[in-house]
Amino acid sequence: MAPFIPKNPDFAARVRDSFNRQGAMVHIGARMTRIEPGFVDITVDYRPELSQQHGYFHGGIVGMIADSAGGYAAFSLMPADASVLTVEYKINLLAPSDGNRLVARGRVTKPGRTLSVCHVDVFVERDGREHLCATLLQTLMTMTGKSDGLASDKKAS
Amino acid sequence: MAPFIPKNPDFAARVRDSFNRQGAMVHIGARMTRIEPGFVDITVDYRPELSQQHGYFHGGIVGMIADSAGGYAAFSLMPADASVLTVEYKINLLAPSDGNRLVARGRVTKPGRTLSVCHVDVFVERDGREHLCATLLQTLMTMTGKSDGLASDKKAS
Amino acid sequence: MAPFIPKNPDFAARVRDSFNRQGAMVHIGARMTRIEPGFVDITVDYRPELSQQHGYFHGGIVGMIADSAGGYAAFSLMPADASVLTVEYKINLLAPSDGNRLVARGRVTKPGRTLSVCHVDVFVERDGREHLCATLLQTLMTMTGKSDGLASDKKAS
Amino acid sequence: MAPFIPKNPDFAARVRDSFNRQGAMVHIGARMTRIEPGFVDITVDYRPELSQQHGYFHGGIVGMIADSAGGYAAFSLMPADASVLTVEYKINLLAPSDGNRLVARGRVTKPGRTLSVCHVDVFVERDGREHLCATLLQTLMTMTGKSDGLASDKKAS
Repeated sequence: MAPFIPKNPDFAARVRDSFNRQGAMVHIGARMTRIEPGFVDITVDYRPELSQQHGYFHGGIVGMIADSAGGYAAFSLMPADASVLTVEYKINLLAPSDGNRLVARGRVTKPGRTLSVCHVDVFVERDGREHLCATLLQTLMTMTGKSDGLASDKKAS
Repeated sequence: MAPFIPKNPDFAARVRDSFNRQGAMVHIGARMTRIEPGFVDITVDYRPELSQQHGYFHGGIVGMIADSAGGYAAFSLMPADASVLTVEYKINLLAPSDGNRLVARGRVTKPGRTLSVCHVDVFVERDGREHLCATLLQTLMTMTGKSDGLASDKKAS
Repeated sequence: MAPFIPKNPDFAARVRDSFNRQGAMVHIGARMTRIEPGFVDITVDYRPELSQQHGYFHGGIVGMIADSAGGYAAFSLMPADASVLTVEYKINLLAPSDGNRLVARGRVTKPGRTLSVCHVDVFVERDGREHLCATLLQTLMTMTGKSDGLASDKKAS
Repeated sequence: MAPFIPKNPDFAARVRDSFNRQGAMVHIGARMTRIEPGFVDITVDYRPELSQQHGYFHGGIVGMIADSAGGYAAFSLMPADASVLTVEYKINLLAPSDGNRLVARGRVTKPGRTLSVCHVDVFVERDGREHLCATLLQTLMTMTGKSDGLASDKKAS
């Protein structure tokens, strides 16, 4: 497959900047560990606050970083004046997320002017090895002319 | 539609107990606001830690409480010795989650011995009214003979 | 829920006309049994040519009429110069499609200028009663200014 | 990725035999063009009976062969006394299916004792080249001890 050519040469700074403004990603301790045109990884280390009732990573955390990894993979290919919106996604949880770290690896399958489609695989690190624990298929929308910043009524004055 | 008959008369205590052991739900401040056979609501109030880059509720939070509401709706109909597992779900984000409170309303569409299917609608409260902001379709699995508690290697000694 | 107001007063003729030009729907013997703003039903009678290996309706037939019912439900609310496109759908097969007739009932959950979201329930008639056998959640796109007719290179000269 | 080891040495004959008993697949002229452990391709040539209103392949046909390709990929890894059931799938239609042939390429992502997960990519051949036109993510169930043949009440006497 041919590599993707980003429309915005500053895509990496723009992706990182948007990610850093997501309070929810900061709150769970997620960090962006890869930013390339069409490819974004998001990683989070285990903490008891991220658990479900058996003590593994909560499926909601898995879905949250998978959705973000795909969303930012799509965003990396969008023009400089655009914003990204998740239209929908489907996720299959393949195995218990039992381990000390989660990595969601998002890739663009089909970039489009209005809609993009991404696949994301999520791996859990356990005993020094990565195990596939979830896979996601997602539709994203390019919001042209929409700032990626805070809505005006959410800004501190 | 006929009301559902729970297999476990203590279903409400069992659902609430399992929910309370989910560190991730506590961490985001979610609470269970309805528990009936086949129906569970989960509510979370807005905090900046739950936001995405525009200041609205993060889609990951929407997905997380929707998945849990459907999962516990299915769990409410399962036998006393069973545990519940999310196999997969698909969620459509219908409108920005702009408001002061989210409510995910889960209902069982098809209970089954092995697999159950649920629908969940998520509403955001804004200006005293509920607005539909997401809808989810989900497959759950009954894990018979599997404790709902901590995995043995996750227990404090 | 408030009833939907169609943008095109001739929506019913337009929906029926588009449906009749779908060779695949004719080929399987499907017919449109309800056309209202935001609601479309598609019905197909059992024939051995529509079976899977156990002799029931093939899941592909279930998916095909469900996708069409949702697509035309969305199309019924679109402007007169627009065409409809299925972006994606997810379908859960809930029970064997064992019976003499299938009815897919599509309804619009969220109409939108660019994207619409529909739910569809599919019922199989057996012993004079309808049984829910599948449920679908779907995203559709409005293609403005795109004719609903044959692509120019597909027309007979 | 390690190759899959089939549990049933006669998997290819079993897959082909089941496929040939699907009236719906015969009806649309589909054929199986690859059978390997965990991988199945299904191909169908263009005919006007398989079209939607623009003259391209109908999305329902795309979904139908994609579902079957994934289902038989999963079935190829199942024990000799098992039958396969599609639990659910999600499909994204990525581009118009404009061409003279469709090929659905199914592969098993996660085989399981009870549930398996497959990915399927669908390509349309146009001007001698394959173009990706759809992608599917699917959950299948192993039905142990259930014959793959006709239900007893569907057999000719």
